[in-house]
Amino acid sequence: MGVKSILTADQFSRKDLDLILEKTRQIEDLLKTRKQLHVLKEHILATMFFEPSTRTRLSFESAMHRLGGQVITAVGMQFSSLAKGETLFDTLKVLESYADICAIRHPVEGASLVAAKSISIPVINAGDGAGEHPTQAILDLYTISAYKNIQGKKIVVGFVGDIKYGRTIHSLIKLLSKYQASFVFISPPEIGLPEKYIEELNKAKITFTETSDIEALRECDVGYITRIQEERFLEHATYENFKNLYVINKKFLKTCRDDIIIMHPLPRLSEVSTDIDAMPQAVYFKQAEYGLYSRMSLLLYVTNRLDEIN
Amino acid sequence: MGVKSILTADQFSRKDLDLILEKTRQIEDLLKTRKQLHVLKEHILATMFFEPSTRTRLSFESAMHRLGGQVITAVGMQFSSLAKGETLFDTLKVLESYADICAIRHPVEGASLVAAKSISIPVINAGDGAGEHPTQAILDLYTISAYKNIQGKKIVVGFVGDIKYGRTIHSLIKLLSKYQASFVFISPPEIGLPEKYIEELNKAKITFTETSDIEALRECDVGYITRIQEERFLEHATYENFKNLYVINKKFLKTCRDDIIIMHPLPRLSEVSTDIDAMPQAVYFKQAEYGLYSRMSLLLYVTNRLDEIN
Amino acid sequence: MGVKSILTADQFSRKDLDLILEKTRQIEDLLKTRKQLHVLKEHILATMFFEPSTRTRLSFESAMHRLGGQVITAVGMQFSSLAKGETLFDTLKVLESYADICAIRHPVEGASLVAAKSISIPVINAGDGAGEHPTQAILDLYTISAYKNIQGKKIVVGFVGDIKYGRTIHSLIKLLSKYQASFVFISPPEIGLPEKYIEELNKAKITFTETSDIEALRECDVGYITRIQEERFLEHATYENFKNLYVINKKFLKTCRDDIIIMHPLPRLSEVSTDIDAMPQAVYFKQAEYGLYSRMSLLLYVTNRLDEIN
Repeated sequence: MGVKSILTADQFSRKDLDLILEKTRQIEDLLKTRKQLHVLKEHILATMFFEPSTRTRLSFESAMHRLGGQVITAVGMQFSSLAKGETLFDTLKVLESYADICAIRHPVEGASLVAAKSISIPVINAGDGAGEHPTQAILDLYTISAYKNIQGKKIVVGFVGDIKYGRTIHSLIKLLSKYQASFVFISPPEIGLPEKYIEELNKAKITFTETSDIEALRECDVGYITRIQEERFLEHATYENFKNLYVINKKFLKTCRDDIIIMHPLPRLSEVSTDIDAMPQAVYFKQAEYGLYSRMSLLLYVTNRLDEIN
Repeated sequence: MGVKSILTADQFSRKDLDLILEKTRQIEDLLKTRKQLHVLKEHILATMFFEPSTRTRLSFESAMHRLGGQVITAVGMQFSSLAKGETLFDTLKVLESYADICAIRHPVEGASLVAAKSISIPVINAGDGAGEHPTQAILDLYTISAYKNIQGKKIVVGFVGDIKYGRTIHSLIKLLSKYQASFVFISPPEIGLPEKYIEELNKAKITFTETSDIEALRECDVGYITRIQEERFLEHATYENFKNLYVINKKFLKTCRDDIIIMHPLPRLSEVSTDIDAMPQAVYFKQAEYGLYSRMSLLLYVTNRLDEIN
Repeated sequence: MGVKSILTADQFSRKDLDLILEKTRQIEDLLKTRKQLHVLKEHILATMFFEPSTRTRLSFESAMHRLGGQVITAVGMQFSSLAKGETLFDTLKVLESYADICAIRHPVEGASLVAAKSISIPVINAGDGAGEHPTQAILDLYTISAYKNIQGKKIVVGFVGDIKYGRTIHSLIKLLSKYQASFVFISPPEIGLPEKYIEELNKAKITFTETSDIEALRECDVGYITRIQEERFLEHATYENFKNLYVINKKFLKTCRDDIIIMHPLPRLSEVSTDIDAMPQAVYFKQAEYGLYSRMSLLLYVTNRLDEIN
């Protein structure tokens, strides 16, 4: 292909990641005194969202505008060409000339790879079903790096909730594995870490523990919380039990390390209580903000323009 | 908050309004020879429409582009994050970094106030349910000021149709009360002026009359027509009766003052006959055009840039 | 009206077409080294799509951005004002001040003419029901001109599939009739060329043949393939028969002229096999790309800016 796309968290080397983190930090700094950089002036981003995800889409579109570029967008595509039986290949093929970058969100795993094979412009995977969400993983990594010295000492990251299906967790584990990190997986047994990830961690000799006890979060540097969905459980009572146990609120936070940060990919429901929103530990809204800077960085990464930030 | 938002028609002082009207007039003049002003260059407006209102949304988006800025937009949000149970606070919180101004339309009264409390960028209420629609009121006021000398002599404004639920009427009354105006409310008794507005007008010693007789419009300087909806009535026959009586057509207009102007917030149905569209009295399309200039003015008001227009 | 709109393929003289083709070619060349021309800087295009057509809409929006302009867009309008009973006239009337050009797609024939009569800015028909799709015809003509010398020798264009209802075919015939072309119409008898087009061709003394035999395509310079829809047939078996006969694949292509080009307005289903996608004869994706350059040309045509391209 020759063209740089972002399809999976796996594709980034430690060196890539360090560069992206550094440039993201510089972008964050630049935006404190400016509303816009002009690096992607005259460029067009196509946001092709085959399933709705307003936050992610707006984040990409704002990132493009803040880089000086323009956006064309298609949402709810299921009602248009695809409904007429057209293949994803055909639908996307025409974008080659209409846009300079394509960010795609699709309910089917692997759709972004199909996209990248279809067209000769960079493709950014903005989430493909049970597959990957690599730009979320990058923004998560950037968030951790903004609060913790991930280049230096080893940090302990606790993942809470749906460890089985949470694609943002899987992608983030891959990135963190390239740094000095150990993991604590806190979940009901029904939705624990899939076997293939356990094998990968063992192979890479990365320290991790698995438990269903939320108390294990107390010694973590980072708490990454995700939503538990009722449909994962056979028994309603089991779901209710964990739903009530896995609530990060003010009271619980007082029992944790003082400098723990609480992250969440959003949307959050009751698993993170609004009573901690104003506490310094709650960084999930900052995390969403970091999504903007990270995605600006990644738009520059795929267009080979990162070195114009300095 | 510290940040300037537009939430209610009440918030504007006479001095505010006079300034906004003056600047709107200057913008209207400037656009006669230019397609774009550059005051909001590099700024991003987010239009968050939780219920559809194409005319209002396009008006805001065009206003932003004519000021040199960019737009990100979300419509039909009910199908995305909110469907997952997220609160409005969480949904909007992330916009702080994605945009510089947020225009919000929402079916629930008070939603724009929640928005303004959630985020640190200016919020513009683009209609919240039975609540307010302050930018419509400003454009209505500007329209009246374009045809009538509201700074000088007293004008008589006749409101026709659904006076009870018509939020654009309620907001406009508030603004006009700061000028020399008296009101004639013409409606079926079932949908007359709510008690709280009657009290306010009495307290402010503003002259007004209430009637169900459309003939009362004849002596007015301004006729502000709104749609009557069948569901407001218990009896179909009553609805049909008023529907047929309250029709502004060529024949009726001939019985009115020569210089009356007929306004309508649109969409209009049969209450304003198309046979008057070409008459000088019919200003409702001009009113929609004035929406553009007024909203440009208001985008500059919330960003403290009004003084850059001159 | 005084304003230049694009409503029908008929409206273009041979001289108009030659100029548009020439300027489109220059635009294609310019975009090889630049991402954007600045001719429509500060202009706003409104894309009003009353029925979905993502490819066409994105093509217009990209064209506008590549000319330096901005876009406001409304899709799924049926759920908004129109649902409230508003006329198309009223809905569009307000666009006069919001935008500088309006591209409209509508399920009802004649809608774009209503639009052009309603508003004082140029209207571009982006497809109106069973009516016309003139910008598609222009891009089709440009595609043919890119591969065949239409200014010189006579070319033979074979139309395959739904000749009766295919509006893109009807519009293209009109344009090609102004050049040295003869036609071969290949379709099941149920969906052959309507009588009125037969009369027009006879009147203009243009050579054409009608057949249901796909073999007739072998001697054509151009094969313009369209989809056959089952609902056009009374008998399922008849449909299945033609559906299987009318498939352009590698095997069939080997029996055709070496320099035939295969076009398709997309979306394509099984009537054009993906096994020819990589062959030089398959130009349908190039055709979609040419849609960008053609529409840039047409946006300049309606704003009288074509002469700024050189």
